[in-house]
Amino acid sequence: MCFEDHYQGLVAKILPVILLELEQQGRLLPPHLREVAGSYLSRPGKCLRPVLLLLSCEAAGGRVETALPAAAAVELFHTWTLLHDDVIDHDSLRRGQETGHIRGARLGRETWDLPETTAAGYGQSLAILAGDVLQGEVVHLLTTLAEVPSEVRLALLAELSGRLNPELLAGEQLDMELACRHPENIAESEILEMMRLKTGALLGYCAAAGSAIGETRSPADSELALALRRFAEACGIAFQLQDDILGITGTEKDLGKNIGSDLREGKRTLLLAKAWKQCSAEERRSLAGILGNEQATEEQLTLAGRIFAQSGALQQTAELAEQYLTCALEILQQALPKPASRQNLEGWAALMVKRIR
Amino acid sequence: MCFEDHYQGLVAKILPVILLELEQQGRLLPPHLREVAGSYLSRPGKCLRPVLLLLSCEAAGGRVETALPAAAAVELFHTWTLLHDDVIDHDSLRRGQETGHIRGARLGRETWDLPETTAAGYGQSLAILAGDVLQGEVVHLLTTLAEVPSEVRLALLAELSGRLNPELLAGEQLDMELACRHPENIAESEILEMMRLKTGALLGYCAAAGSAIGETRSPADSELALALRRFAEACGIAFQLQDDILGITGTEKDLGKNIGSDLREGKRTLLLAKAWKQCSAEERRSLAGILGNEQATEEQLTLAGRIFAQSGALQQTAELAEQYLTCALEILQQALPKPASRQNLEGWAALMVKRIR
Repeated sequence: MCFEDHYQGLVAKILPVILLELEQQGRLLPPHLREVAGSYLSRPGKCLRPVLLLLSCEAAGGRVETALPAAAAVELFHTWTLLHDDVIDHDSLRRGQETGHIRGARLGRETWDLPETTAAGYGQSLAILAGDVLQGEVVHLLTTLAEVPSEVRLALLAELSGRLNPELLAGEQLDMELACRHPENIAESEILEMMRLKTGALLGYCAAAGSAIGETRSPADSELALALRRFAEACGIAFQLQDDILGITGTEKDLGKNIGSDLREGKRTLLLAKAWKQCSAEERRSLAGILGNEQATEEQLTLAGRIFAQSGALQQTAELAEQYLTCALEILQQALPKPASRQNLEGWAALMVKRIR
Repeated sequence: MCFEDHYQGLVAKILPVILLELEQQGRLLPPHLREVAGSYLSRPGKCLRPVLLLLSCEAAGGRVETALPAAAAVELFHTWTLLHDDVIDHDSLRRGQETGHIRGARLGRETWDLPETTAAGYGQSLAILAGDVLQGEVVHLLTTLAEVPSEVRLALLAELSGRLNPELLAGEQLDMELACRHPENIAESEILEMMRLKTGALLGYCAAAGSAIGETRSPADSELALALRRFAEACGIAFQLQDDILGITGTEKDLGKNIGSDLREGKRTLLLAKAWKQCSAEERRSLAGILGNEQATEEQLTLAGRIFAQSGALQQTAELAEQYLTCALEILQQALPKPASRQNLEGWAALMVKRIR
């Protein structure tokens, strides 16, 4: 079977598990909370994380069916972080649809005719609670891994709660913190560490959890889990670097979110740090007027894009993304020397980076 | 040993377990996030929930030491709901101190001189993420119940994530929803159900989890766990009814939060529903001008208190709280016929209701 078909086959197995969990917990929830909690899953993304988990399980010699609840869990984990992230970033668009808090505000207006400010507060509260609902579902799904020994299930839960969760939240906070600091005082290494935590940690967990399930042992005891975690973390950083590039050069349709929102929110991307170092004093003044300026015009965003390109920052960032990918593939090759055992994970990595090639 | 000493002895065992978990996960977190996540625990409340869990464990024949990580977990569970709740309700005071988002805003102002609006957004984001940090710690602590068999640990995690979490969040949402509806169209039963979910569910979990650990079996398989859950849920509703009364008649020092904030936020308490039914049309107009009016004056709040008292709503609500307590104690007596085995849980219940006697 070609990789693309295998990938789609896995997605087709994951989605029903997610929908069943949403439906079962949804029975306990009032309609608005149920709707917002399920909203991002009604139009799922590429399911990169759960597919990585299942491919890692297969690469470690396990069966996909055994790992399905864990695959559903990591997609729901990703989804709750998106719901809370969109509240924090005041984003209005996600996967081409309204974000959780925007949807919640609309529900409040439509149902009780709430005035604008009250509806906005109601929507934001719903999105916070909806993220909390999904956090519970993540844990619940991991407890239901019926074919995985209890000890391994507990190890997966301990790793999720004791390592992934604080790392990811540290990354979120670091992202917010960098946005508060002057671009002059930010090291590129801080931005890369933020990416490792915010994006890499979850991908690393997916790979480690999948291979641990495949090997029927705790991820902490497995060399393969360790290597696949490093592979996935490096892919995550490559992915995030690209995502930052697409946030400037892409289209809203491709990206499914607002173009330029990183600039308007004042996010300190590696692109920005590199451009800042390399552009003229006048260009820096222009960038300073755009960064964190929610009213920045289309013209200003276009100017920023030009500065990023002409300073070389775009090109350098794209090259760095490629380096992370190359490094990831080398780790993979060492961990899984037989080409047949690693080809699907290579296909997965290629899918992640397809967008800028 | 007298009950009060036993209670304080238990609290003295619980707090170090909480602080150790906060410190261990805190090492992975940037300073602001660490500070906000730990802020409510630097001045812990009465620890009613973890003490209930430990007393239930003892009543079921178990050792307190076995259950300590679970006791710490339920206090952290309660704490994350407070952090998110305070964001949702825009409360500024908790246990006599600034709430998480207010503290976060101050940290943003002090560290980076953020302007007021930016600091408020930063503080709110920190409080959301801090609640998420604690959610992870809850799960992590339950995985570390070293003396509890894996199967029972998984059952406790499944119950927490598959039942308690959605019930509690349904209660939060119902609370928000009732505030959007006209007082005329709210049934008293809806308010009582909201209380059962928002306050009773966590107390019920504490009692069931404690007795399950004491009996070394899944809470779903134990009649004692079922009875203690019902006892605790009823106590929770009694407690919440009192809390609503204190929110009108108490002092900020006793309560540790803003007096009248329920009215200013437009909360639909049972007090309000009863008063609304029983007061004059003119009094209803007065109440309508106060409910959900964040600018309501002290005079308006005093007037509302007078309406609540004169309509009989205060008295009736206090009586209902007593009825729930009586019912809870009857359930307890049936579940634990020997007086010696239930006296500490009776002491715990009396402590909860002490404040209005």
